[in-house]
Amino acid sequence: MGNQVKINIRGIIHILGIVLVLEGVFMTSCIIVSMIYHEKDIKTFFLATTILLLSGLVCWKLTNTNRSKTFGIRESFIIVSLAWFLMSLFGAFPYLFSFSIPSFTDALFESVSGFTTTGSSILIDIEALSHGMLYWRSLTHWIGGMGIVVLAVALLPFLKIEGVLLFNNEASGIMQEKLHPRIGNVAKRLWIIYVGLTLTETLMLWAGDMELFDAVCHSFGTIATGGFSTKNKSIAEYSSYVQYVITAFMILSGINFTLHYFALKRQFKKVFHNEELKYYLLFIFGFTLVITIQLFSRFHTGLEEAFRRAIFQVASIITATGFATDDYLLWPNLSLLLIFLLMFVGASAGSTGGGIKVIRHVFLFKKIRASFRQQMHGTAIIPIKINNNPADPRIVHSVLSFIAIYLLTFLTGSLIMVFLGVDFHTSIGSVITCMGGIGPGLGDVGPVGNFSGIPQTGKWLLMFMMLVGRLELFSIFVIFTPQFWKN
Amino acid sequence: MGNQVKINIRGIIHILGIVLVLEGVFMTSCIIVSMIYHEKDIKTFFLATTILLLSGLVCWKLTNTNRSKTFGIRESFIIVSLAWFLMSLFGAFPYLFSFSIPSFTDALFESVSGFTTTGSSILIDIEALSHGMLYWRSLTHWIGGMGIVVLAVALLPFLKIEGVLLFNNEASGIMQEKLHPRIGNVAKRLWIIYVGLTLTETLMLWAGDMELFDAVCHSFGTIATGGFSTKNKSIAEYSSYVQYVITAFMILSGINFTLHYFALKRQFKKVFHNEELKYYLLFIFGFTLVITIQLFSRFHTGLEEAFRRAIFQVASIITATGFATDDYLLWPNLSLLLIFLLMFVGASAGSTGGGIKVIRHVFLFKKIRASFRQQMHGTAIIPIKINNNPADPRIVHSVLSFIAIYLLTFLTGSLIMVFLGVDFHTSIGSVITCMGGIGPGLGDVGPVGNFSGIPQTGKWLLMFMMLVGRLELFSIFVIFTPQFWKN
Repeated sequence: MGNQVKINIRGIIHILGIVLVLEGVFMTSCIIVSMIYHEKDIKTFFLATTILLLSGLVCWKLTNTNRSKTFGIRESFIIVSLAWFLMSLFGAFPYLFSFSIPSFTDALFESVSGFTTTGSSILIDIEALSHGMLYWRSLTHWIGGMGIVVLAVALLPFLKIEGVLLFNNEASGIMQEKLHPRIGNVAKRLWIIYVGLTLTETLMLWAGDMELFDAVCHSFGTIATGGFSTKNKSIAEYSSYVQYVITAFMILSGINFTLHYFALKRQFKKVFHNEELKYYLLFIFGFTLVITIQLFSRFHTGLEEAFRRAIFQVASIITATGFATDDYLLWPNLSLLLIFLLMFVGASAGSTGGGIKVIRHVFLFKKIRASFRQQMHGTAIIPIKINNNPADPRIVHSVLSFIAIYLLTFLTGSLIMVFLGVDFHTSIGSVITCMGGIGPGLGDVGPVGNFSGIPQTGKWLLMFMMLVGRLELFSIFVIFTPQFWKN
Repeated sequence: MGNQVKINIRGIIHILGIVLVLEGVFMTSCIIVSMIYHEKDIKTFFLATTILLLSGLVCWKLTNTNRSKTFGIRESFIIVSLAWFLMSLFGAFPYLFSFSIPSFTDALFESVSGFTTTGSSILIDIEALSHGMLYWRSLTHWIGGMGIVVLAVALLPFLKIEGVLLFNNEASGIMQEKLHPRIGNVAKRLWIIYVGLTLTETLMLWAGDMELFDAVCHSFGTIATGGFSTKNKSIAEYSSYVQYVITAFMILSGINFTLHYFALKRQFKKVFHNEELKYYLLFIFGFTLVITIQLFSRFHTGLEEAFRRAIFQVASIITATGFATDDYLLWPNLSLLLIFLLMFVGASAGSTGGGIKVIRHVFLFKKIRASFRQQMHGTAIIPIKINNNPADPRIVHSVLSFIAIYLLTFLTGSLIMVFLGVDFHTSIGSVITCMGGIGPGLGDVGPVGNFSGIPQTGKWLLMFMMLVGRLELFSIFVIFTPQFWKN
């Protein structure tokens, strides 16, 4: 009541400045790509990079005060939300300046979709874009994916927000096994894993029937679980070798990056005893099995083809990548329904993947099992164990609330879309695919469709959904609560 | 491990015997109806009643031992589940013996639908049935509705199952305001309210354009929130006066019967301060408002007609009655979606209505609000208040688990239906309408459709869904857990 909150605005602007400068540095690589292909977009990128770097530098340097003084939860929430929005806003400039996407709404949509690693596109003809622009599109995925991993695994645990399930990490019980006590080191190691995975995939794709340029772009899209392709037909354009390589790397990218680190350090015990990984793989192979059988029996394809189509699409949806080799809307009902349900599953915490995340479902399942036992014994609340450690009841609460808020947000979003006149399937499909950061949805926005036909207001709603989903709801929603602005 | 549980089987059979005898007593009234209309079904009912009374008496009298000795939670769960199943099984005999419904599956479906007060029907031509049979059909609703109210408000709180959300009552926070310390008295008062509401509605309908017979049957269907009509066109057959009367009584029947009792005793404070009632009415009028506006603007009807159609359907779905004046499948998308969402809302705890129940949503909303506050303050779990009393955290847990299990059951059921080859809309529509005890669903089982086209296995699944939904999940599911059979 009345007690106005003091927010460290200078500190916020300072950090956002750094973020923009980093984005600018990344964008300079687009100038090089444009130079290689002798494209006129070189001017576009030069202009956009200049604006970006200047804005960033101004914010960064003019606020270089003692920002550690009053830097708390509020500031973190605001920075995280604004960082993704500002990156997307500046990231839309190349599309606009080059007239590749002349509408502001559409350009911002494509940019938000990129940085949130969603991969939903308003483009009808992707191949009409210049190399520089295609590269920037995929690069936005890569930046966004890197950002989310660093945020989830390295930065947030150090903010010491107790009992708060701000990001995945605390839910996964991995807090006890901190990578390394220093942010800088952790971020560096993550960076090495991230770049390492990207390079390996690029080389493997290049070794197949992909050109180097496409291999780089698709690797960006895979490791970030983004889903923008450089081809209109997405991965259906390529050989089964390429499809298997991308499937493998999608699955790898949906695993908690902490586990990659443990694997690199040959601490395999920690990897194999991780419950989330177990269930994540169980989901993938379970769904793949059922869909393979159905595709095999209905479409009279070879067993290998049925398996390849099934596992590619399952991996693409569960990790929220969104690449396509197939139009799953044409699949038999049960398989289609399974794909739709997968959109609510999500990948692992601490990965680049989106959605609700497997660990939260594990919590939910265990909670339900415990409630049956409670029902019989009628005693105190039975604690839940994750990775053999009892879970903090506050985190269990947060997880259950998260799932509830997620579903409510999905419902509300779908209702608004229907209200805007969008048909039922397209409504629910577009909302869940944007919230989950997946890419393709149902109806008009299926794997062979695109988001150009969604009404203007709907596109803004979907942008909001992408940001809200990527930043795990709370960080954005909490800013809109009155409590946030009270002491 | 290994400790075999001793279950008081004699006690269970004893009580089930009493239940069957009671059902038999009710069924004798069908003989009278058949006599009045000089129908040949008189023999059918005579035979069915005899079998019922004999079976009941045998079970009752041959087990007349000291049953209070070891009578615990397990026995209660088993009795509740078996009671509804056995009532339905014996209740199907009249349909079978008279060849009104020659298929056993169909006859049982109609009977389960009756006793669970669902109102989903496999009949294509309802008006082809005899008066006796139509009366029995509606009477099964009335028996089922009475059973659920007595169970929820009178019997279960006395079983002293601590921390268990077996039935609605404990969730509604009404435990603290027990009606009266003695089961017999409470049951008697509920009986009076139940009969009183039924009589009042019958007279009011009869005063309109309904014949006495139809007025009685429709009152049975309304007060029990069942939904079986005696007419193929359901309530669309009747005047707007009748439609308003039925709307009012549907809304009344969806209110906790404890509140009716308080109202009768002129303790209006307790009624007006009840949070569930507030939100229940809010849901009804909120949804009605939006749908009225949409129907008014789209269909160019009068405002009164738009309002009447909207509130009738909203009341019918939220209370899980399922009467129809309209085919909501032809409504604009947003209104249809709202109707679908209402299927997940449900009526009040301690009423005859079905579904998840408003009180559980109130818990969920409050829990979500608290989790936002927790997010900001990062301290201990913030307690939730219902009716200004802090809610037991164990109950909050139970409620959240209930909602999760409800949605999971819905998803699993829908998947099985799709797997059986039923189309997507019919699948989700039939499963939710049967779980919620509503009646009409989506697709082929909409307000003007029926359940005759559902495959055989699907009908059995839906019967299971009706029982599971009516008995609030736990009581049935818990029997299938290994813990149940361990000491």
